[in-house]
Amino acid sequence: MERVPVETRILKSNDDYAQANRRLFRQRGITAINFMSAPGAGKTSVLEQTLRQLDGAFHPAVIEGDLYTTLDADRIQAIGVPAYQITTGTCCHLDARMISRAICEFPLHGIDTLCIENVGNLVCPAEFDLGEDLRVMVYSVVEGAEKPRKYPLMFHQSHAVLLNKVDLVPYAGVSIQELEDNVLAVNPNAAIFPVSCRTGQGLSNWIDWLTRSLDLLRAPAVASGCV
Amino acid sequence: MERVPVETRILKSNDDYAQANRRLFRQRGITAINFMSAPGAGKTSVLEQTLRQLDGAFHPAVIEGDLYTTLDADRIQAIGVPAYQITTGTCCHLDARMISRAICEFPLHGIDTLCIENVGNLVCPAEFDLGEDLRVMVYSVVEGAEKPRKYPLMFHQSHAVLLNKVDLVPYAGVSIQELEDNVLAVNPNAAIFPVSCRTGQGLSNWIDWLTRSLDLLRAPAVASGCV
Repeated sequence: MERVPVETRILKSNDDYAQANRRLFRQRGITAINFMSAPGAGKTSVLEQTLRQLDGAFHPAVIEGDLYTTLDADRIQAIGVPAYQITTGTCCHLDARMISRAICEFPLHGIDTLCIENVGNLVCPAEFDLGEDLRVMVYSVVEGAEKPRKYPLMFHQSHAVLLNKVDLVPYAGVSIQELEDNVLAVNPNAAIFPVSCRTGQGLSNWIDWLTRSLDLLRAPAVASGCV
Repeated sequence: MERVPVETRILKSNDDYAQANRRLFRQRGITAINFMSAPGAGKTSVLEQTLRQLDGAFHPAVIEGDLYTTLDADRIQAIGVPAYQITTGTCCHLDARMISRAICEFPLHGIDTLCIENVGNLVCPAEFDLGEDLRVMVYSVVEGAEKPRKYPLMFHQSHAVLLNKVDLVPYAGVSIQELEDNVLAVNPNAAIFPVSCRTGQGLSNWIDWLTRSLDLLRAPAVASGCV
């Protein structure tokens, strides 16, 4: 019982930082997207493909979250997109204060689309608002069709759910229909995209949806300066 | 900075419960095994196969950890093994107090091998000692070869690492050699078993190792009664 007030205080403090982040993003005309998944579902691969195929009218940057290494930021920088690595140590999720610090150190001049790759974890990241406009979940179909029922929060909170690695469906014994039904049972409004970063299958539908969403959310840049 | 003392207190309290669990297991002659993995790596499938193939001289039971559902306990009970489901709500790991409560409610009479299936999460479960004798990690090779470097703690703390879903290696573009090298770089003492619960590949080596380990760890039952 003693842990409830502690958790409440931590989440309240997080919400304050998230609101400050959100104000800053709006002032600068930046749309922020929080990419979440279990480890190894393919967030970085999705980002690589998305950033390569996104309309040149967008100007993206990436904040990467990882426990220890800079491997993911290295991959993003290798395709010519600015990337900043947050290493969380033992912390299993990003929180809004980490993002607040990062955007004070990471130059976002000229950036209109900030992709945030969360730590790989199917539970905790969904509890922490980072100040983002869109939440995108990447799910590896190989993890099984029943997981939306077992880990509902992230599925429930995501605007889009990418079902990645669909090229492995014939070998993994997973029913995409059952998986989609389970996602929709938890979140009837989710936009669902079966994709494969290895074969490119389905990515154009996802990119089209993302482009339309960014156009809708795009706000006029009002001011700049780290607040 | 303020979160460090809170985390320290939580882990200290956990260690006290873990020591009490460990004493109880020893008094009753029970060997406890903590199975950990990311979601969807195949812990329950490994348990099903292991419990089916384990020498009949052992008398196992299972404590399942999940956020909401009883799906995993249902699967274990379906093969005739006693199973108790802990539902953690939003908590992303099992802790020693949850196990302490479970073993006061779950009859362990005649049990000598207690398998504990942790919540699917590659980060937090490794921070919480449950009072177990053995830590076994199940890793889906489809998650990629580099994860031991990105999420080292669980790999480092595990006595055995099962590399599951090796039947998907030809289609997933993952190098088992690179993955094994990365596991050994983090934990040179790990016993590594490439396995497939779908095809049965490699399971006999794992069962042999587990049987030998249980024989070594088996302690004489001294007393009983929930402390």
